[in-house]
Amino acid sequence: MSKRVFSGARPTGRQHLGNYLGAIKNYVALQTEYQCIYSIVDYHALTTLRDTSELRHNTYEMVLDWLAAGIDPKGTIVYVQSHVPQVTELHLLLSMVTPLGKLTRLPTFKEKIQQQPDNVNYGLVGYPVLMAADITLYKADLIPVGADQLPHLEFTREIVRTFNHHFGDVLVEPQARLTEIPRVMGLDGVNKMSKSLNNHIELAAPPDAIRKQVMSMVTDPARKYRRDPGHPEVCNVFAMHKIYSPDDVERIEGECRNAGIGCVQCKQLYAEHLVAALAPFQERRAAWAKEPDAVWDVLADGARRATEIAAQTIAEVREAVQLP
Amino acid sequence: MSKRVFSGARPTGRQHLGNYLGAIKNYVALQTEYQCIYSIVDYHALTTLRDTSELRHNTYEMVLDWLAAGIDPKGTIVYVQSHVPQVTELHLLLSMVTPLGKLTRLPTFKEKIQQQPDNVNYGLVGYPVLMAADITLYKADLIPVGADQLPHLEFTREIVRTFNHHFGDVLVEPQARLTEIPRVMGLDGVNKMSKSLNNHIELAAPPDAIRKQVMSMVTDPARKYRRDPGHPEVCNVFAMHKIYSPDDVERIEGECRNAGIGCVQCKQLYAEHLVAALAPFQERRAAWAKEPDAVWDVLADGARRATEIAAQTIAEVREAVQLP
Repeated sequence: MSKRVFSGARPTGRQHLGNYLGAIKNYVALQTEYQCIYSIVDYHALTTLRDTSELRHNTYEMVLDWLAAGIDPKGTIVYVQSHVPQVTELHLLLSMVTPLGKLTRLPTFKEKIQQQPDNVNYGLVGYPVLMAADITLYKADLIPVGADQLPHLEFTREIVRTFNHHFGDVLVEPQARLTEIPRVMGLDGVNKMSKSLNNHIELAAPPDAIRKQVMSMVTDPARKYRRDPGHPEVCNVFAMHKIYSPDDVERIEGECRNAGIGCVQCKQLYAEHLVAALAPFQERRAAWAKEPDAVWDVLADGARRATEIAAQTIAEVREAVQLP
Repeated sequence: MSKRVFSGARPTGRQHLGNYLGAIKNYVALQTEYQCIYSIVDYHALTTLRDTSELRHNTYEMVLDWLAAGIDPKGTIVYVQSHVPQVTELHLLLSMVTPLGKLTRLPTFKEKIQQQPDNVNYGLVGYPVLMAADITLYKADLIPVGADQLPHLEFTREIVRTFNHHFGDVLVEPQARLTEIPRVMGLDGVNKMSKSLNNHIELAAPPDAIRKQVMSMVTDPARKYRRDPGHPEVCNVFAMHKIYSPDDVERIEGECRNAGIGCVQCKQLYAEHLVAALAPFQERRAAWAKEPDAVWDVLADGARRATEIAAQTIAEVREAVQLP
């Protein structure tokens, strides 16, 4: 049997280029080699969310993007975290073997406290425990992570070892599937692409909107005039050419350095390549969008298959903990 | 419809006189007036327990005592907390609206830290959240508490108000059903009766064992000799006479004060009254014990009826939180 991959993402609605290049593209690629389980982690969203009115809509839009991007729901399990509430039971049981100090000492916890100092809720503190429950409920072998997320995975591995030490060898210690995650910059060229900063390009944006957004991108700030030579290595547009213009990237690099090509022309080229690259995605998205029920059916089927695995794990865990 | 009472107790095995006079007797009495739900809270036991091998056995023994004491499983719902895992989902959702600081500032938390400084786990910190989930999952109206437990109930009431404020009027704010809970002292006359101090009398103990234990009770320490007058108001045995010897208590008080009765004789009298009072309990217990399956059937039926209520509440809560 092929190894099992697990990953979760918060329901953030329509996905952007940064989501695609940073995660979804990899999700799609992993499917050829592994049994993949991808979770829309709505419980996690609650740790920082107050207004939940968009949760359902955002879930739907995100799944539409996933499916259009090539997540294959026949092989891969795509489901909403809260549709398999067994995770909350495992979360509670794991909380009994998780020292509080380990949670409050995590660097990500300190970050989160700074982000919402007036809402340090108990659930926020425990989100790594919930993450550990997500992973271990499915006995996942591999977790796709960037190098910066390794400490997080190590936290899960430690909980697994502690649990197994106390209660017997039930849970599986997950391994990292290290992935080089490109840091996709926003249109401003300064910050990481993100919906909250509104510096993003939605995968589902109409071609003309994409063109307009690309034309607004900040390029090499040192190149003030058309006649100035550019520095492709610091240019956000050039970084995208490396991905979306494989046949032209060498020429562009040379012509940028000797001012043979201007930024406007360079961006026009990227815009056309991006629009073309997204065309098949947008076609598939439109097809899925015609049948919203089919999208929810994918999630229902995913929840059913996920529950089969989850119920088995919970039965083993309960047996190990010797609950009555 | 009559109001709903909820209470939970950790599975501590065979119950003693302190458990009976402090809780079970009241549990039984409440049944005549209210719809009662009594939970054996095994998840809670895990917050402080490392060795779980006795959980199942202790659950069985405790339920046997409850049934023998007069808990009527036809009207009252008796169930094991973990048999209705919906409580873990509500626990997670409530954790999102529970400030961490409120938990760590609770006096009971500070006590628990002192009791097990090397095992301050995340689950231990959150036990009041789990308690709030227990209560609100069943939309309990009344919680039997002693005055000292009022702050705990107030904590649940605050969580309910916060949750309802954010998500709409779904959960019920429970009220206290204030009960005078007698402080039953152990055989040593110094500490509260408790299994861990081994100063207790089990309800199911054979009559001769009960007699022997009663005879070992410490009485008024100032009464050194038979001829010394006693002080019933400080005597643990006299406190028990007030409960178990209603017809003799006035006479005993007088004869103790004028040294008309000796401690040995006084204890013999209490022993006989206690043995007689426990006889019907012990008969019913023996009858139940002949059919262990029937005890587990009570719990299965209780879980089924509890799940009906819990599933309804969770559906309303999920709707209010707007989970997908």
